[in-house]
Amino acid sequence: MKIKILTLFPDMFNEFKNESIIKRAIEKGVCEIECIDIREYSLDKHKHVDDTPCGGGAGMVLAVDVVARCIRANTSDSSHIIMMTPQGEKYNQKKAEELKNYDEIVILCGHYEGFDERIRTFVDEEISIGDFVLTGGEIPAMAISDSIIRLLDNAIKEESHEDDSFSTGLLEYPQYTRPIDFEGMKVPDVLLSGNHKNINTFRKKEALRRTYLKRPDLLDNYNFTKEEKKLFEEILEEEKK
Amino acid sequence: MKIKILTLFPDMFNEFKNESIIKRAIEKGVCEIECIDIREYSLDKHKHVDDTPCGGGAGMVLAVDVVARCIRANTSDSSHIIMMTPQGEKYNQKKAEELKNYDEIVILCGHYEGFDERIRTFVDEEISIGDFVLTGGEIPAMAISDSIIRLLDNAIKEESHEDDSFSTGLLEYPQYTRPIDFEGMKVPDVLLSGNHKNINTFRKKEALRRTYLKRPDLLDNYNFTKEEKKLFEEILEEEKK
Repeated sequence: MKIKILTLFPDMFNEFKNESIIKRAIEKGVCEIECIDIREYSLDKHKHVDDTPCGGGAGMVLAVDVVARCIRANTSDSSHIIMMTPQGEKYNQKKAEELKNYDEIVILCGHYEGFDERIRTFVDEEISIGDFVLTGGEIPAMAISDSIIRLLDNAIKEESHEDDSFSTGLLEYPQYTRPIDFEGMKVPDVLLSGNHKNINTFRKKEALRRTYLKRPDLLDNYNFTKEEKKLFEEILEEEKK
Repeated sequence: MKIKILTLFPDMFNEFKNESIIKRAIEKGVCEIECIDIREYSLDKHKHVDDTPCGGGAGMVLAVDVVARCIRANTSDSSHIIMMTPQGEKYNQKKAEELKNYDEIVILCGHYEGFDERIRTFVDEEISIGDFVLTGGEIPAMAISDSIIRLLDNAIKEESHEDDSFSTGLLEYPQYTRPIDFEGMKVPDVLLSGNHKNINTFRKKEALRRTYLKRPDLLDNYNFTKEEKKLFEEILEEEKK
């Protein structure tokens, strides 16, 4: 997969591309990340990319002509063009699973201060990572790139993400490692028992329990197995106490 | 405000600290960002920070003793300690407004692969930026730091964020800048009229309209002024057609 990032701050991605999993994925040829400086598509001799808003007001507005030129020069019919904006569709793991299937994704990082409304006509979809305001789309672009790259074949070991929160539809079960006793807080006995059936049951139950306690909304669309249904009834009893 | 980031990848924040608004905020003394390498708190001669999960399974689990040492060495009673995890409370602009009031925020970036459950006892709250899986808490830590720093006094010009999406409770109105006509797509006449009353009404109405069309959930708790109520009735009529 190729990911192109159209941004006013290409340097912000330097360390991101160096990050362990991303770096390995690039080296293995699993993905390619190219950052393109929108500013290079300004025809202005001072390389301006924005201008004051029509109708007045504070802030500067990213210009449609510069962005249109940048998009046209860096996309083809097979590119899927995404704009990061707080007004976009809320990003989630399901969306990541969908995006991983494209050969080329182009991510336009908005100026969050404002961009010309007509820029919207040049993108295939608008995505938001949440209801909060950031300076630009760069951090959201890193977030979605990271979440997509993790899912590509051979990016990470397959088993590493099969129990991730949201991948199973549940929050992840609690994990423990040495020391067994840390200042009186102990690893649950069952995890030290060596009994794999009991360990699996414990993990399933605790994943269900924490989803029920922290994110009951995730259970609305969850398909319980027969075993999970029984465990869930036990949890409801236990949590009543 | 001081923001301390406890991470296994302190370099990932190099460019973030150099980003225009953040850099200026640091230079003006509005905020300070310190990245602390969790690895330095490993007592192991190979500086291991994680270990295999008790009970078996894939991946490595971040150890409680190393993290506890790192947290204790870098916090005081006045620190507000946050852990970034997909299981945390969903982050939003209201949370950003709340967090900007702390003198010192300490953000622990989890290994998303897994961390020892007992680490949870060392933090004041757990925050998630959304229902998707990332490699680590570094990108989410940048996201919340950026959103908080923007809100600090003197970080950016006051007027720059008063119309931001979510700050007013509505999505932002459409913005336009030159060229007035781009390939047949024109800036709405009202914005070129110079009539400030009409411009304000247009912006209010379009902010309401796009909130209604894209994020009707935001209107559930919105306090309409009398004028906005009237505009909203017009929108309902117009959108019926």
